[in-house]
Amino acid sequence: MTDTARKIVAQPLSAAAFAPFGQVIDTAQVASRPMNDGRARRFHDLAEIEVIGNGARVVVGLVEAEPYAVPLWLNLVERHPLGAQAFVPLNAAPFLVVVCPDESGKPGAPQAFITAPHQGVCYARNTWHSVLTPFGAAQDFVVIDRGGPGVNLEEHLFDEPWIVHLSTSG
Amino acid sequence: MTDTARKIVAQPLSAAAFAPFGQVIDTAQVASRPMNDGRARRFHDLAEIEVIGNGARVVVGLVEAEPYAVPLWLNLVERHPLGAQAFVPLNAAPFLVVVCPDESGKPGAPQAFITAPHQGVCYARNTWHSVLTPFGAAQDFVVIDRGGPGVNLEEHLFDEPWIVHLSTSG
Repeated sequence: MTDTARKIVAQPLSAAAFAPFGQVIDTAQVASRPMNDGRARRFHDLAEIEVIGNGARVVVGLVEAEPYAVPLWLNLVERHPLGAQAFVPLNAAPFLVVVCPDESGKPGAPQAFITAPHQGVCYARNTWHSVLTPFGAAQDFVVIDRGGPGVNLEEHLFDEPWIVHLSTSG
Repeated sequence: MTDTARKIVAQPLSAAAFAPFGQVIDTAQVASRPMNDGRARRFHDLAEIEVIGNGARVVVGLVEAEPYAVPLWLNLVERHPLGAQAFVPLNAAPFLVVVCPDESGKPGAPQAFITAPHQGVCYARNTWHSVLTPFGAAQDFVVIDRGGPGVNLEEHLFDEPWIVHLSTSG
């Protein structure tokens, strides 16, 4: 059922707009510092990889994600109660980022963002978010998140899907 | 002084050859597991981001590194006594990885590797390694390493440089 009240239009991703949900990972976030005798510039400490619980540690992985059709029919969001989760794309293609504020343990109305080339995101611990949603083509990511014992996934199925559009025209 | 005894030829990077120094980060290291209802494949836990010391945490950054001329004149290696350091390139270009075994607190003879497209590396804590050495063109990396108080850098200047060649022919 295409209820217009369920339509969301994605906005350009910005650190300010995304602040309630985590961090934007890009070179615009901090001033660079020189390293390697000035032959490299480091943009330091762009994501807060909080992990909690006994035996928790930060793990690094790679993810190959298939593209989704847009407008995106958003049926499900998830969150990770024991750790943050960061994704950095390995190419310059934009991808869709959908997050929800928490409302008494359930996701509120989604907010959608389109990344600029080379932007990544870090979802703060316990932040409702959609699955990885490239569009147009498959996309690979570095993922930095939590490893260790414990149940670190909570999913929420919406009664009705939200429809996420890339622009007001479609 | 070009002493032939100081000449090193880089080898293709492989997990087995690199094992004494850390981990190779690529999709060949582990079987993938499905995520996002089968719409993505995750290659999990590819790097051991060990961090130690009071207030230590894992940080994520981005690095823009300038290219080096090859053959590489290697004057200096460094190591990080308080944490591992992982680099994942944001494009498919190979880069040069130079590491040294430790010999009583000093670096032994270097070993050099050329990455395959999309391979990254994680230097284990306290492993002697060269600075980031793209060649041919500048290259950007995701870096995952340690933040926190303490002195986490030790450098070693070689009395004579080592010359790292990309192949036996030059």
